[in-house]
Parts: sequence; C-alpha cells; structure tokens
Amino acid sequence: MSETMNVPTHLSAAHADFSKALAWVDGEVVPLDQARVPVRDLGLMYADMTYDVVHTWRGGFFRLEDHLDRFLASCAGLRLDPALSREGLRRRLADLVRRSSLQDTLVYFACTRGTAVPGTRDPAKHVAHRFFATVTPLILRGQPDEMRRGLHAMIARGIPRIAADSVNPAWKNTHWGDFHRASFAAKEAGAEMALLLAPDGALAEAPGFNLVALVDGELVSPDANVLPGISCRTMFEIADDLGFPARFRRLMPEELARAEEAFLTATSCGLFPLTRLDGAPIGAGVPGPVTTRLLNTYYDRKNAGWHITAAASIPPPDPG
Amino acid sequence: MSETMNVPTHLSAAHADFSKALAWVDGEVVPLDQARVPVRDLGLMYADMTYDVVHTWRGGFFRLEDHLDRFLASCAGLRLDPALSREGLRRRLADLVRRSSLQDTLVYFACTRGTAVPGTRDPAKHVAHRFFATVTPLILRGQPDEMRRGLHAMIARGIPRIAADSVNPAWKNTHWGDFHRASFAAKEAGAEMALLLAPDGALAEAPGFNLVALVDGELVSPDANVLPGISCRTMFEIADDLGFPARFRRLMPEELARAEEAFLTATSCGLFPLTRLDGAPIGAGVPGPVTTRLLNTYYDRKNAGWHITAAASIPPPDPG
Repeated sequence: MSETMNVPTHLSAAHADFSKALAWVDGEVVPLDQARVPVRDLGLMYADMTYDVVHTWRGGFFRLEDHLDRFLASCAGLRLDPALSREGLRRRLADLVRRSSLQDTLVYFACTRGTAVPGTRDPAKHVAHRFFATVTPLILRGQPDEMRRGLHAMIARGIPRIAADSVNPAWKNTHWGDFHRASFAAKEAGAEMALLLAPDGALAEAPGFNLVALVDGELVSPDANVLPGISCRTMFEIADDLGFPARFRRLMPEELARAEEAFLTATSCGLFPLTRLDGAPIGAGVPGPVTTRLLNTYYDRKNAGWHITAAASIPPPDPG
Repeated sequence: MSETMNVPTHLSAAHADFSKALAWVDGEVVPLDQARVPVRDLGLMYADMTYDVVHTWRGGFFRLEDHLDRFLASCAGLRLDPALSREGLRRRLADLVRRSSLQDTLVYFACTRGTAVPGTRDPAKHVAHRFFATVTPLILRGQPDEMRRGLHAMIARGIPRIAADSVNPAWKNTHWGDFHRASFAAKEAGAEMALLLAPDGALAEAPGFNLVALVDGELVSPDANVLPGISCRTMFEIADDLGFPARFRRLMPEELARAEEAFLTATSCGLFPLTRLDGAPIGAGVPGPVTTRLLNTYYDRKNAGWHITAAASIPPPDPG
C-alpha cells in the first residue's frame, strides 16, 4: 500500500518551449503570440462561445474522439457552427500539433458567435461563426512536489456555481465569474483551491476541475451541475478495471469532510490530490493509496498507448 | 395625451459610417477592423473582464461620470485594474471620439485580466490587465417605426437570470449565456425579446436592458438581480421632474401582465416600448402616453445639453 506517486518531471513551465506554440485562426497558422481575434468578437463581448481542451502525449492525442464528441455537443447546444466537419476538426487539430513539432501539448479549440453585427444583439443574426485553435506545451498542473503534498481546498460557501438552468455546465463555456470570485475568496482564507456548491447545497465542481471523493470505500463524483469531465471518466474507467467501486451521484459537503481520500480531475493533470478541506485533513492528510494507484496507472496506460491516437496517423486537412 | 413619439431618423445602420470607427488597444489608436486581442486574453478564455458603454450625442458624452463611476466600481468588484486614473480614462475616451470625427457614437470600454500566464488559472497571478476602448457610430436600437410599434416580449420561464450570489450583475459583465438561451427561446416562440426572472421568480432584466412597468400609476423597475442601469435612472429622473411617481422595487410577472405601459431602457435607445407580453397586449397594445412623454423629453433634454460633456472640452491624454 506504500506505492510511490510517479509524476513526470519534465513538464514544467521551466521546460516549456512556447516559441513553438501555434494557432489556427481566420484560415491561417500563425505563431501563438500573433494569434488574435477582433475586439468585437462576440466570444469576448458576451462570452458567446464554447471550447474544449485535449492533450497530446508523446505525439498522440488522448481521447480525441471524446473531446470532439463533447465539443460538437456544446456547439449544438449553444447553436454554434464551427463550419468544419468532425473529420475536418480532427485533421485541423492534428495538423497544428504536427507543425508545432511539440510532443506533449495542450490543444485548445473554440467556436465563437463571430464578429458583432452593428445594431443588433440578436444571436440568431450572427451566422459567420469563428473557429480557432491553439497548441501549447503541456505544463502539468500539479508538479511532482505539489502532487505529493496535495491541494488545500475550501468550500466557497455563499458563492454557488451558476445554476444549470441559467447556463448549462455540460456545454463547456467560459462563464467563470463564480469560479473567479470563489478563487479570490479561497486565497484570502489561506486555501489554494475553491470547491463550489450547486444552488441545492450539493458539491458541484472546482474551477476547471471535477471532484472525486472516496467515501465508505466507494469513489463518488457529483452527477449534476458539472461539466461531464473526460479525465474524471478516465479515472472511473481505471478504477473499474482495478476493482475500485466508482459512481456518479449527489455528493454532500459532509461526506467530503469525512472522505478517506479526494482528488480533482482535469486534462492538465489527470488528477490532483486534495489533502485538506476547510483547514482539516482529508483522511490521513496526504495523497491516499487509491489516488496514487489511479494516477500511476493513468501514466502507465498513456505510456502504453491507451486511448492514444498518433497525430501522425491523421491525414492533413483538405487544401483550401 | 396624443403626443407623437419623436425619434431621430438618421441614426440607422444605413447611415452609419463604420469607416470612421476606431479603437484604442495595447497603447495604439487603430481602425476598428484592425483592433484585436490575443486569443489567450482571459476576457475571451474565461469571461474575466468588465466593460461599459457610454454614448455621445452631437459630440458630447451623455452622463460620462456615471458611466465612469460604474466602470470603476465594476473593476474594483472584479479586482481588475485598467491602469488608468479616472482622469486618464476620461481623456482617453474623449481622444478616441475626437479622432473619429463622429458626433453620435457608442463608446465601448473594457478591462480584461490580460493574457493568460502558462500553467496557472489563478486570477490573482495575472497582473498585467488589458484596457481597450472602441468608438462606433450610434445606431439606435429601436428605429422610429419599431419604436412606434413597440416590442413583443416573452417571459423566458425556466431560464432564470444567473443568480447574483454567483455573478454579481451590478458589476457589468459578459456572462450572457442565460440571455442568449432566453433570446433563442423567445424567437422560437414568436416573440422578439426575452424577459428573464430572477431565481426567486421576480422580474430581473432583458438582455442588455432594464425593465420598467407602469403599474397602478407608478413606474416600477426591479431593485435586485439587475445591472443598475444609467438609462433607467435617467428616465426616473425625468419622471420625477414631470411628476410621474417612480421607484425601484420587486416587480412580479403578474404585475407586468396587467401594467398600463411598459418599456425597456438601454444606452443604445434610451427606452424601447414593450407593447405585448406572452402574446397579449400590454395596456392598449401601443406605446403609452407616459412612455412617449419620457422618450420625447429625453431627446429634448439631450438636445439642450442636459448631462452632456463636450468631448472637445476634455484635455488630450498625457503623452506616453
């Protein structure tokens, strides 16, 4: 049970070569620092956009089809049209990764409602939507030392997650005002990470992370008021294979407070252990054996090509 | 009581000269269509920004100090720093208007959290915020024919306004996902404008508009879950001078349904009459005498220089 946590050491900001970062925007590949959108893009003016982030590992996309599924569902829900087929998207993202010559990357891709049409705010009147994408070096949220210590979290009471009937969290969106407010509150209280409750008082998510707790021997993650996280699903698949029970259900703050272990999940880290909640230790106050086992298995599997699609195996975009 | 509504006829999209539109961004004045921000600006990535919109009328700002008050309060609330003093802001906006040579304009100005720092999502770690501004020809929302007919509105039931404890609506923000969802729903139901309820069931606001109803002889506008609208305050000041009672208080949908008159307020129109709600007429189903009187007085007063500060009277920005 004293398994050591294995986290790659080379994926830090110090090692990242941002000179290789690229973007695809308005029909061109450009260096990232030249990639811009009009100040009257409705994604900026009214957060009228969606996005997704997939990562590559040793030159291969991790769960590319799952990210494309979610992006296309978000576009459909928000009535945004990236003007690219699924195959067109796949090729465009792969082309960007190949051109960067980076191996371990974050690939961000977005569709906005396009540039504002003077004299109207009617979203139905904007038909030329804008798709763009960027590729940047993968920097692990959770460098090895941070991962072995785990994050100190706080429940941001009084700042609920935006309600799902106002803005559907399953359609990945940029409405992070509640997250920012909670992050500032957490920082002021001496914590490193805010956890937000849904309006009904159940746990929802952290800024850009899903939450998982090991409660009475079962891994639990909130089943409502959250983005359906692909990293969370990955950890649940691994748990299933390893024989750890895992399910999505309503999770209350009192359960998290008495959890044996807890962690957050996101593309940029796989998982990130939580070791303190509201000033008290979670379980033993260190990343637990189930958390460690999941993370190590995650890296072992990715290294073995699990859910990986080599960028080189994807054809180039159609010309024009 | 049969006063005719007087709305300027020259402020239409057909008359607008967008070739004169300008922007101030990253330390430079550029033509609007060249004004861009990085795709990794946090205003775009996470709606981490505020903005305001003031208009000029015959070369003078209308209620500039009120808009600056609100913008600076939004910046303080959201912990954004435009890196310009109030006087610096005033001069920068006036300079932009003068350079455009436009007389009747919308002046949009914004402050974002700046460009993303790789490897963190902590908003406190972003210290180089981005201020930018644009000046565009004023196009009236509500052209004369539309104003005399009034808008057909629908209450977007089931799509509540984002709760104030999640995202404070008094800090002007770009979280319009609920507005967009409601606008699409209204359009599908054959209405032209969505009105959103607060989570508690009281009326809140329409996308970019405050709501005012004449109920039992008193003008009423919601006092919570809304942006403190400067155009709304303007109409209430005029009402007070004309002897029409007006106050901010909780306003329920049933009251709006039986209102004698109703209108929306925004910088881009002053006010816009509402003449139908959920398919039934509001009052007589045409813009009412109080609405008409307020609008005509609004234009008479602006033409006489009320609350107007000539752009030409504001000194140029400090060099460098």
